[in-house]
Amino acid sequence: MMWFQKEIDLKPRARGFHLVTDEIMSNFPELKNIKIGIINLLIKHTSASLTLNENADPTVRQDFENYFNRAVPENEPYYKHLDEGSDDLPAHLKASILGNSLNIPVSNGKPNLGIWQGMYLCEHRNHGGSRRIVVTIHGE
Amino acid sequence: MMWFQKEIDLKPRARGFHLVTDEIMSNFPELKNIKIGIINLLIKHTSASLTLNENADPTVRQDFENYFNRAVPENEPYYKHLDEGSDDLPAHLKASILGNSLNIPVSNGKPNLGIWQGMYLCEHRNHGGSRRIVVTIHGE
Amino acid sequence: MMWFQKEIDLKPRARGFHLVTDEIMSNFPELKNIKIGIINLLIKHTSASLTLNENADPTVRQDFENYFNRAVPENEPYYKHLDEGSDDLPAHLKASILGNSLNIPVSNGKPNLGIWQGMYLCEHRNHGGSRRIVVTIHGE
Repeated sequence: MMWFQKEIDLKPRARGFHLVTDEIMSNFPELKNIKIGIINLLIKHTSASLTLNENADPTVRQDFENYFNRAVPENEPYYKHLDEGSDDLPAHLKASILGNSLNIPVSNGKPNLGIWQGMYLCEHRNHGGSRRIVVTIHGE
Repeated sequence: MMWFQKEIDLKPRARGFHLVTDEIMSNFPELKNIKIGIINLLIKHTSASLTLNENADPTVRQDFENYFNRAVPENEPYYKHLDEGSDDLPAHLKASILGNSLNIPVSNGKPNLGIWQGMYLCEHRNHGGSRRIVVTIHGE
Repeated sequence: MMWFQKEIDLKPRARGFHLVTDEIMSNFPELKNIKIGIINLLIKHTSASLTLNENADPTVRQDFENYFNRAVPENEPYYKHLDEGSDDLPAHLKASILGNSLNIPVSNGKPNLGIWQGMYLCEHRNHGGSRRIVVTIHGE
């Protein structure tokens, strides 16, 4: 049984959806020693999120940004939490809709994802800066 | 400490929400040996998803299909990812809103769910075919 | 390697979003013995949910309630699952959008959350009563 855990800082990105599988997983050469296990990733922020989705066509990620901007609009007259700018409360809402963690199986030293699945950093702020992720891996 | 992992292929289903608790869990007789543990289920696709919800009244699942078709409409003029049909990009969006994995506690050899909770396969494509799930169980 | 698991009943709350980090975590003094681990929380209900979000300004939680009531309206003419009141089917939908579980890393005896992150109980029913959560912690 092995456990390892590391905090990593993703490079700052523009508002939108970004494929970050390689940027995250390149930090974990130890993974190759795990035959069966689980990778937990938690983003330590309330205005950015993590999800798995299509890893090939960049227009999927553009459509995601455009969809979520319509589904969770800025400047709704009933919003009360306004101090940090019009992108802030919608960012909190998107973060809870999309989720703050991923839990991915490990098989034979690799994340066992579908061939079309990649990890997305969902940056919901205009100027979110670097985002910190805790990665916890355990298995045997 | 025990780990086991299996990939299972769910039978193809029509677009909509389907109760699959028994179809999934019948593959895991080993579960009865685990007193405390966790079951991780990951769907290896980007246009179908997994969730827990009400396991009794089938109209809940029909209402889910009708709600999500309105909340994530097809044929929006701003969608760019169109090559695979009008149901494709909405399917990706629904998959990220509902989520790709479940993480369920095990207590005394059984999934510890609420009495009204069941596992849903959420099939977002018109012709999604069979869906593959990786099931990873560990505990003691 | 340690495993422990407990079911806890949260006190009944009004419909809305509630910060419950302390109410939950005060039940787990054992956590201080875990250097690296994972906390899994599952809510055993289909009309309430769990999420992580901003733990400081209460207007965030009021905005969440107001947003989700608009995004998932009551009394839509196409809803079929009506027997338990107009808040029931929307509660099921919100539960699946927000999610039924949290999976949080443990580092040096504490949940490793961001400084602004707290655990929300999302109560989607008008009179939901006490809600039961299974908490499963494992680590080394």
